[in-house]
This record gives sequence, structure tokens and C-alpha cells, in this order.
Amino acid sequence: MENTNQSFKKNLEHRVAAIESLLDKYLPVAGEAPSIIVEAMNYSVTAGGKRLRPMLIQETYKMFGGQESFVEPFMAAMEMIHTYSLVHDDLPAMDNDEYRRGRRTTWAVYGDAMGILAGDGLLNYAFETAMKAFEECKTIEDYTKVRSALEVLAHNAGIYGMIGGQVADIEAEDKPELVTEERLQYIHTHKTGALIEASMLIGAILAGASKAEQELVSKCAMDIGLAFQIQDDILDVVGNSEELGKPVGSDAANGKQTYVTLKGFDRSVEDVERLSDEAVEILQKLPGDHAFMESLISYLIARRS
Amino acid sequence: MENTNQSFKKNLEHRVAAIESLLDKYLPVAGEAPSIIVEAMNYSVTAGGKRLRPMLIQETYKMFGGQESFVEPFMAAMEMIHTYSLVHDDLPAMDNDEYRRGRRTTWAVYGDAMGILAGDGLLNYAFETAMKAFEECKTIEDYTKVRSALEVLAHNAGIYGMIGGQVADIEAEDKPELVTEERLQYIHTHKTGALIEASMLIGAILAGASKAEQELVSKCAMDIGLAFQIQDDILDVVGNSEELGKPVGSDAANGKQTYVTLKGFDRSVEDVERLSDEAVEILQKLPGDHAFMESLISYLIARRS
Repeated sequence: MENTNQSFKKNLEHRVAAIESLLDKYLPVAGEAPSIIVEAMNYSVTAGGKRLRPMLIQETYKMFGGQESFVEPFMAAMEMIHTYSLVHDDLPAMDNDEYRRGRRTTWAVYGDAMGILAGDGLLNYAFETAMKAFEECKTIEDYTKVRSALEVLAHNAGIYGMIGGQVADIEAEDKPELVTEERLQYIHTHKTGALIEASMLIGAILAGASKAEQELVSKCAMDIGLAFQIQDDILDVVGNSEELGKPVGSDAANGKQTYVTLKGFDRSVEDVERLSDEAVEILQKLPGDHAFMESLISYLIARRS
Repeated sequence: MENTNQSFKKNLEHRVAAIESLLDKYLPVAGEAPSIIVEAMNYSVTAGGKRLRPMLIQETYKMFGGQESFVEPFMAAMEMIHTYSLVHDDLPAMDNDEYRRGRRTTWAVYGDAMGILAGDGLLNYAFETAMKAFEECKTIEDYTKVRSALEVLAHNAGIYGMIGGQVADIEAEDKPELVTEERLQYIHTHKTGALIEASMLIGAILAGASKAEQELVSKCAMDIGLAFQIQDDILDVVGNSEELGKPVGSDAANGKQTYVTLKGFDRSVEDVERLSDEAVEILQKLPGDHAFMESLISYLIARRS
């Protein structure tokens, strides 16, 4: 077991490194743009992280038998969208965070105005980047695949997806007494779940998965997203401050409602396990090799940061 | 002449009203999104304005013989992008404006955080909206037209276009002593010119204009954009505060460098005329009926607000 874990972790590190090289290829260069904005955008994207979303695109794509290069622009675009959301979340007018993963946040280094513009730049450049997938299109089927993937990206990143979750989160901060389980579930499935779903769906769509397969992928992704987020709430109580790069217990100290405060610690741990079991069960109905994906799910659940 | 002016103005009002009905059709509805964000986005988009960019898309499209419905999603998307840029520009961390066109700005009504998210929501929803043009695609030629139009939208709205101009503008505010004529020209051609160019190019591309025609359209648009912006600087000196909805002379009072402070008043007026003459000359090389477009250019130049 220890050996399997070690080999998974090596494999994971290897894939993260490969994704970071891929990101480098797609980062904006200054050219006609002012160098400061390119610097601020790239500072944000290269700040590290799990690279979970591009990894999920790639793994789902391979699971359905896709060829690697077609998804690359979407892998980079997805990480840019995830990054812009963090850059804007950290702003003084939002969560007012000066540090993330132990590193100064974008606005803390480049100022408020540039923090706003770097986020805008990343969101816009994400679409510019994803559209590069059109360069590989020859047939009308290729075009419809890229079109559908773009539609999922835009829909799940926007007000019906991630931004919707951010708005509900901001509203909840102002009125923690109004946060019900249903509302917290909305925040979790949208603020985090929507991009995880989009990642797996985009991989499936680009590889030509059927509608029925896409539905299973969505369900699996929503389970993973929710489990991931509940685990975040659990880590806020028990986690290691150094590994997380933010003070432990900060949600509770802020009087913020979390899955743990609403449902209790034991129930939260149970739910994470139930959701990840469900996700693995769905995976087993899907074609291809999903050994790495199964290990990835266990790892995300058992993670301490 | 008075009669021609009056008939042009009636025509213009009619077209603005038609564009506003079209915008209404494309505005987001709450559905799964929190109602507050949809309210803030729609508050911003329905705040009035010249609707110049969608009008330019439509006029250029018709000039090249296009059918109307194909461009509609892009007309709405372009106005959303223009609007998001104003919403973010007005934020306390940017220009800190509480009023625009005599109406309270989005953040002033909904708060800072919601101002940021409403802007993000509009930028993202603009791409979601523009992609609706795919619904009308049947042939591979249709797909490549929509693809090219999307690429122009993303490129000109981003760091190599409008956002680049916003960044240079913010940098110039901090260091007005460093603002040269070249730098001011960069700000003007990017902050305003890029979306005007994109509007006319998108109209031309969707209607199937040739590469050579697209180049003429770009040049014409850049002339219009620059003339429009210099006229803005002129209006800041001589304009009517009530019509503009902001205090006259505010740029000078802020110690801000403008085309007028750099090149002098008379030279600025001359340049506006030269640029608009150039734009009209280019138009005359293009096919179709451009009588309305020519009047529109004269009107933009002679405007007092």
C-alpha cells in the first residue's frame, strides 16, 4: 500500500510538472500589451497549486480515447479561469487576502487596480486561448466539438456556474445567519463544482463521448467537487496551517458557516467518503483506464492541504 | 441641411431603440443564478448610452450585404463587453466614479464586491452570448466566420486591445509626467479604438468581406476611434456638463494629460476633422450603402456629449 501510494505520488508530481510546462507554452507574452499586466497575470498563474482542473480535462480525455494535443488549449484556459477567480476573490473589496499558498496575492504585489485588470485579462485571455483549439479543426465534427467545449467553459465559469457561487458566497458572508444546508450546497456545487464538472465534461466532449456518457461524467464530477469542498471545510478545523498557507480555523473565527458547523464533523467525514465512493462507482461504468483517476480521487479526499 | 440633420437624428433614435430591444432579448435571466447579480448586470447594460458599437457591427454587416439575425448575438455581446469595462473602470480601486450619465454607477448601488462580480459576469456572459451565433451555423464556412468573429472579439477586448489600453491609462494616471503623445495615442487606440475596430471587423467578417476589405475596415475604424476619443478630450474642455453627466474640465483638474493638453486645442480640432475625412474616404472605397455610416461619423465628431 505504501508503495502504491508512493508510486501514485511520483506519477502525480510528474503530471503536475508536465501541466506546468504546458501552461508555460500558453502564457501571454507582452508584445503589444503593457508588460506590467502580462507580469501580473503570469505571476498569478505560476503561483503553484494542484493543477487539478487541467489534470481532470486530460484524464477524462484520455479515458475516452482522445489524442493529447486537441485538449491542450482548454487545459491552459481552464487554469487561467480558475486563477482569475482566485485573483478577484483575494481583492480587498472581496476576501481581502494578502497571502495565498504562503505567497503574496496579486493585488498585494501589483496594487488593487492591477489586481482587477489582471483578473479581467486572465478571464478574457482564457477564451482567447481556448479558441486556439479551432486551429486543429478540419471537419464540421471537429468544429462542433470545440464549440460545445467552449459553451461548457463559458456556461460553467459564468453566473450560472462559478460566478453564481462566488456571489452566493459573498451574500452569505454578509448574513451568516441565513446560510442553510441548501444554500451552502449551492455555493459548493457552483463555486468549486462547476469548474470541476466543466473540466471533466470538456475532456469527454473533445474525445467524442456520447450524451449518456457525458451525463455520467457530470454526475461523477459533481460528487468529486462537493467531496473536495467538504474536505476543505474539514481541513479548516483539523488541517495543518503551514501546508494550507492560511491560518487554520479562520472560517470559524470569521463566524462563517461551513459544512462542518452545519452538519457536524462526523457527518461531514462520512459524506466525503460516500461521495467519493459514488464517484468511483460511476467511473467504473465508463470506458478506458481510470486507475489514475481513482487514485486521484482518494488522494483529494485524504489530502491534508 | 437642418432637415437632413433632423432626419438623421430620427433615424439614429430609431436604430438606438431597435438595438435596445435586441439587447433586452439577450439580457441574462436569473434562473439558477442569484438574482442580485443578474439585477446588477442588467442595471449596468440598460443604463443607456449611444449603443455605438452594436450599431457599427450592424451597419458594417449590412454594408457587405449580410442578413440581419446572424450578427445579433455579437451585437449584444459587444455591448456587454463595453459595459463591463465601464463597470470596472468606475470601481473605487480604479477611477472611483459614483455617477455616469447622471445615474449612480453599479458599485455605488450594489457595493464594491458586487461591482467586481457584475463586471466579471458581463465579460463571461458576453462570450456565452456571442457563441449563440453558432446556432445558425450549417456549413463549415459558417463555422469559420463565427470562429473568426469570436477571435477578433477576444483579441480586441483583451490585453492586446482594450484591457491593454486600460492598463496604460491607469499607469498614466500615476505618472502624468511620463505621458508622451505616443503613449496617449496607444491609450486611445486601445482603450476605445480596439472595440470600435472589433465591431466593424466582426460585421465585415460575418458578412463574408474579403481580407483586403477587412483591412480597409480596420483602418477606417481606427480613424473613427481616435477621432472619437480626441473629441472626448475636446469636450472635456468645452462640453456641457449636464449633457456629459460629469463635471467639465475634470481631466485638467486632475492634472491628467489629454490630447488637448499635449497638442493644443486648435491642432486637436484639426486632427478630428482630418481623421473623420480619412474615414469617410475609406468608406467610399467599400461596397454597399454607407450614407448612414457617413452621417454617423459626422455626428460623432460634432457631438456635444
